Amino acid sequence: MALVVQKYGGTSVADIGKMENVARRVLKSKEAGNDIIVVLSAMAGETDRLIQLAHKAAEEPDEREYDALISTGEQLTVTLLSLILNRMGFRAKSLLGYQVKIVTDKSYTKARIFRIDTKRIDEELKKGTIVVVAGFQGVDKDGNITTLGRGGSDTSAVALAAAMKADVCEIYTDVDGVYTADPSICRKARRLNRISYDEMLELARAGAKVLQPRSVELAKKYEVPVYVRSSFTDEGGTLVTKEDVEMEKEVVCGVTYDRDQAKITVVRVPDRPGIAAGLFTPLAQHNIMVDMIIQNASLEGYTDLTFTVSRKEIKKAHELVEEVAREIGAARVEVDADVSKISIIGVGMISHSGVAAKMFSSLAKEGVNILMISTSEIKISCVIQAKYTELAVSALHDAFELDKG
Amino acid sequence: MALVVQKYGGTSVADIGKMENVARRVLKSKEAGNDIIVVLSAMAGETDRLIQLAHKAAEEPDEREYDALISTGEQLTVTLLSLILNRMGFRAKSLLGYQVKIVTDKSYTKARIFRIDTKRIDEELKKGTIVVVAGFQGVDKDGNITTLGRGGSDTSAVALAAAMKADVCEIYTDVDGVYTADPSICRKARRLNRISYDEMLELARAGAKVLQPRSVELAKKYEVPVYVRSSFTDEGGTLVTKEDVEMEKEVVCGVTYDRDQAKITVVRVPDRPGIAAGLFTPLAQHNIMVDMIIQNASLEGYTDLTFTVSRKEIKKAHELVEEVAREIGAARVEVDADVSKISIIGVGMISHSGVAAKMFSSLAKEGVNILMISTSEIKISCVIQAKYTELAVSALHDAFELDKG
Repeated sequence: MALVVQKYGGTSVADIGKMENVARRVLKSKEAGNDIIVVLSAMAGETDRLIQLAHKAAEEPDEREYDALISTGEQLTVTLLSLILNRMGFRAKSLLGYQVKIVTDKSYTKARIFRIDTKRIDEELKKGTIVVVAGFQGVDKDGNITTLGRGGSDTSAVALAAAMKADVCEIYTDVDGVYTADPSICRKARRLNRISYDEMLELARAGAKVLQPRSVELAKKYEVPVYVRSSFTDEGGTLVTKEDVEMEKEVVCGVTYDRDQAKITVVRVPDRPGIAAGLFTPLAQHNIMVDMIIQNASLEGYTDLTFTVSRKEIKKAHELVEEVAREIGAARVEVDADVSKISIIGVGMISHSGVAAKMFSSLAKEGVNILMISTSEIKISCVIQAKYTELAVSALHDAFELDKG
Repeated sequence: MALVVQKYGGTSVADIGKMENVARRVLKSKEAGNDIIVVLSAMAGETDRLIQLAHKAAEEPDEREYDALISTGEQLTVTLLSLILNRMGFRAKSLLGYQVKIVTDKSYTKARIFRIDTKRIDEELKKGTIVVVAGFQGVDKDGNITTLGRGGSDTSAVALAAAMKADVCEIYTDVDGVYTADPSICRKARRLNRISYDEMLELARAGAKVLQPRSVELAKKYEVPVYVRSSFTDEGGTLVTKEDVEMEKEVVCGVTYDRDQAKITVVRVPDRPGIAAGLFTPLAQHNIMVDMIIQNASLEGYTDLTFTVSRKEIKKAHELVEEVAREIGAARVEVDADVSKISIIGVGMISHSGVAAKMFSSLAKEGVNILMISTSEIKISCVIQAKYTELAVSALHDAFELDKG
């Protein structure tokens, strides 16, 4: 008998019929003798509907109220699934963030989990209850509802699995696993049977939508085995786990892209200490995440600083940067919202030379201009013009022979 | 400076535009220097939508999950109104049942309030916050969400007014006060400026939809002045208050009807002690409220027992009664779901004779057959065939000259 956490996304609980499928899947595992904790997202489209309502009520909604509003989406799905499981003759109980308690900090809309009380869930599991926990939401120490940011239900699931010492955290989604590239734009994409936490983390960070990066960080930290599966088929699946001897150490395990990128260049910045801090502190204060940062070598006491942010934050970021640019005497600020980021990922990279060179030459061969480059131990990312995204993914997939398992 | 509780019903918060009207009304009172606690229902239609979802998920939904599901309706309206008030430049904060805390018993779907913590609201009012409380919902001592039954937001509002020692509890609805009869079926109906708690209570119990009976009971118990007003106009209004010398002691203050009635007769019941208990205990155990009960004089050791229940509970009630009827050897059970209850109410009745006679003769004159009669100190009710409802209301309104103020 194992303790299993199963997380289902919005498309898996989009209506009562789909929830009945989820219920059957839950019961299959339950009847195999497992203890089950189910974590749910809101019905597909519901969170967007609530967000629209919030923005109709106020252009810049107060974040406390916003979180209390949008968290109702998960309250709906967990109560409905519990009703369905009850009707099917099983003991099931919904628990909201404040009922579990999933205690977070006070950063509304992007809260971080401090701790999870295991007592209430333990009590219910002992009674044989299927515990259905609302994903995406938590509660601060004063009882205010918080949410964990887009895709936060993955984080809820992994955090619960870690706190409850679950044997596995199964993430059910609309694809049947993790692929070497997005199958919708790369015909030859191949599903991976296993992938390491580090690779998965870089894939997720680099734009693969299958798991929220924070959930992978958590899984790695607490060594929670995460099994990515389709909620519509029993086939396939990818296990995200510790790197081990069995694992095929591929040089490159996947190619990803992220279209949600915008590039800002501050031109001719006087190169003196504290300039970067002056530029990035206001962005941090406004909770704008900066992704890649590149600073050119200084020339005659001046330098150019280029960085990327999420496309939807470009307006605010531009405003803030213009202000600092004026203060520090930079020549001008240039913005390009028409870019995307292509990345190749693989733990094998560390011990193989020539990977970067191969990436750059493959892109060059297709006529794709590289605008920015950044590298980590197991990842190389290039910012390119958005229109080349699909071409670049396929070219790199071919170059590294990812279709061959 | 006064402390005012304002409660708005579902039609007053049906969409963002209507909520903006509510916000303006709230701010008018706030800017007059009052401290404001707003209590809201769900958007008109939302609770029904959620109830339908619940019944789609399970024919007989588990009540704990049901309450957690339908309570999201009020979570939506309180957060949206807070967003609107914030956007208009005012400090406003939503509080859910568990955040206030509004502690109830564990009777899901019809919970009763044990106590209301005033600390959190007090703190917020001191900061100048407009406190927006979710009506209809509470929390039991174990943190489970409960709801107070249909129209429970009135009860939430009055209970909050009592706990916070508010100066007045304003109930905003889609009519501009309490009338001598339902204006939609009685052309001559007249709005009352004042009405006593007792009369309001009987009116509400006898079917007037304007206030939930429990809220009036609470208002009477804690002497909370309740002001019934329209959320769409500044005109009119009815003050529900203690009976006092100023109050016009009308013999009859209003005529009401209740179409949600069904009649069950148990024919030829052996007349021995414990029979009534045997009949009504199973109904009570299934939370079926019995309204009028009439037992005929015993004849040759047998009697007939007739009583009314809510029309929507007739099926379940019939099943339960059939079972008991067999056990106790009654001849048969007759059911009539096509009846309604007409009542006249007035504190002046106690000291006036002939009120009942006048009621019966007025109905007789119109050819309306009386099926059941029950009387209290300030109310006389008759069950009649449903098709005569409007005729009976108008006839009684005329007979007691209720159009004359």
